[in-house]
Amino acid sequence: MTRTVVESRTKTVIIGFDQPFCVIGERINPTGRKKLAAELEAGDFSSVERDALEQVACGAAVLDINSGAVFSNKMAEDPRYADNNFVEPALMKEMVARVQGLVDVPLCIDSSVPGALKNGLETAHGRPLLNSVTGEEERLELVLPLVKKYNVPVVAISNDDTGISEDPDVRFAVAKKIVERAADFGIPAHDIVVDPLVMPIGAMATAGHQVFTLVRRLRDELGVNTTCGASNISFGLPNRHGINNAFLPMAAAAGMTSAIMNPVQPGASAKKIEARIAELAALGIVVPDGIDPKALAPLIGLGAASATPSKEVEAIKAANFLLNNDASGADWIRFNKVAAAPGEGGAREGRRRRRG
Amino acid sequence: MTRTVVESRTKTVIIGFDQPFCVIGERINPTGRKKLAAELEAGDFSSVERDALEQVACGAAVLDINSGAVFSNKMAEDPRYADNNFVEPALMKEMVARVQGLVDVPLCIDSSVPGALKNGLETAHGRPLLNSVTGEEERLELVLPLVKKYNVPVVAISNDDTGISEDPDVRFAVAKKIVERAADFGIPAHDIVVDPLVMPIGAMATAGHQVFTLVRRLRDELGVNTTCGASNISFGLPNRHGINNAFLPMAAAAGMTSAIMNPVQPGASAKKIEARIAELAALGIVVPDGIDPKALAPLIGLGAASATPSKEVEAIKAANFLLNNDASGADWIRFNKVAAAPGEGGAREGRRRRRG
Repeated sequence: MTRTVVESRTKTVIIGFDQPFCVIGERINPTGRKKLAAELEAGDFSSVERDALEQVACGAAVLDINSGAVFSNKMAEDPRYADNNFVEPALMKEMVARVQGLVDVPLCIDSSVPGALKNGLETAHGRPLLNSVTGEEERLELVLPLVKKYNVPVVAISNDDTGISEDPDVRFAVAKKIVERAADFGIPAHDIVVDPLVMPIGAMATAGHQVFTLVRRLRDELGVNTTCGASNISFGLPNRHGINNAFLPMAAAAGMTSAIMNPVQPGASAKKIEARIAELAALGIVVPDGIDPKALAPLIGLGAASATPSKEVEAIKAANFLLNNDASGADWIRFNKVAAAPGEGGAREGRRRRRG
Repeated sequence: MTRTVVESRTKTVIIGFDQPFCVIGERINPTGRKKLAAELEAGDFSSVERDALEQVACGAAVLDINSGAVFSNKMAEDPRYADNNFVEPALMKEMVARVQGLVDVPLCIDSSVPGALKNGLETAHGRPLLNSVTGEEERLELVLPLVKKYNVPVVAISNDDTGISEDPDVRFAVAKKIVERAADFGIPAHDIVVDPLVMPIGAMATAGHQVFTLVRRLRDELGVNTTCGASNISFGLPNRHGINNAFLPMAAAAGMTSAIMNPVQPGASAKKIEARIAELAALGIVVPDGIDPKALAPLIGLGAASATPSKEVEAIKAANFLLNNDASGADWIRFNKVAAAPGEGGAREGRRRRRG
């Protein structure tokens, strides 16, 4: 049975077909999060630390740490900052140290910069997951020696020098090539976690089918674990969570064993609470002074006051149970005791249909 | 390609592997609904009519009509009412007539009483689905001639004279026997919709695996459509909707093409609204007279004022899109325009992960 072992200082997480689906928290990533990048540029790690704590509290088994920040102000002063080979290694080291100082879960060292990968591997306790190698020749030659040297598992993304193919057979072939090349370095298949590349169904109607078929082939023919950037599937569409919530159990049923995803549903924002209070006031329902607006959130339809596990996490926990990777449903039952929030409808008895 | 055709007076619904998952509304069923049974006994069809309208509005493509009421008061006066062969035929006729007078969707005639099945078939417009035959000899001899005579499709439940087997191979063999016996009557496999029998995962840890494997075999080896009483899977567990929401997309991905289920999330109850208003009053937040409590429901965290599609329907619509049975996501987009309710978080843009 394929088992990918990742470790923190004291904890071991196993990714495998007979294991609960491994949730890799994606939040600590300044790419596309301008505010976070600006904070990091100013040496402010408070969001990173909050994201670490919240994601673990909400069910992340592993935390991705991506150092891909662009320091646009510093760049203007010092041209060296225009080069991510200059920015990322120091940033990765600092992020990894801070995160593992706060939470004891395995990390996923995520960068396209070799120096950042190396610094992450040097700094991380235990056995982190490396993110990532691709089928591009340069990346293979650069990343696989690191994987071998540090004896860590690696995410293998199914694109190569020709780009990302829309043909799933080509993406399978790229994955196979990476597994074979890794073997040449003495890296076993169980340390390769393939990302078959999830396309948005809004742009490619067969994207769902492709993933489910690819994941099944990767499991059956190459015996490897798999992961993906789960939310890509719903890119550009309304009610993305609705699509993600269905996609993740379907992918898990096809044999996907982990995903890089957001496990956190943020607490009600002060802005939304304020707007709702104004809406109520317009109806003559006045909130007196001295009431904490945050505490009011669940009573006025804005969900929990603080961060709670996302619906995607609930969907994954249900899938674990349905795939018999949650013995006696112990985790499901515990999760629903903790998670039951006002207005969320925890336990509800239904009736069993008489048949025949 | 297997196509099971069901029809109302003017509408055709096709159950098939390349079709949107067929939602068969389960609500019109007095079994286990004492209040509904009492209403029917008193000749009150208002709940039946409301259930018909709500289920269709919430996404049911077909409505199940089950006549299995026990008329306990009448029984005390007239012993004939103790026999469902006396009660159900007239009741089925009346229910079918009333429902198809209100909504134009195909019906599923559901009874264990031959006279009720016959009356349902006689009364229903178009081509209803018959529910059900089993592998029991007596049922086969009784129901298959009706299926042949009225040229309708039939739900085939995978139990026989030995009961419900916990062994999925035995349940497959029962389904196969029914398909073969039907063929002897000249009934084609595409008119058999197999219910592989969903066991509760709370009682049987492998129940999910069993269904997914069975459905795949039924599709690949017998070429038949499948259905199930979907909510059985979560019987006895907390947060049943959470399990059902994951189960349905997983079942659809395995090849299940329909389910008998509840498509309706009821509107906020007067009782819950009253309790929340009291809760707010205790905090000094007073709702003035003259405000319609129902209209207030979404603003105080109790969801929509009236019935809306259940989360199970959302999960199925997402699965349709993910399985490429919703061209260009047109149905998903329309559904989310209509369904977006306060506090439900309709469209939310996320960011696409940079990879590599």
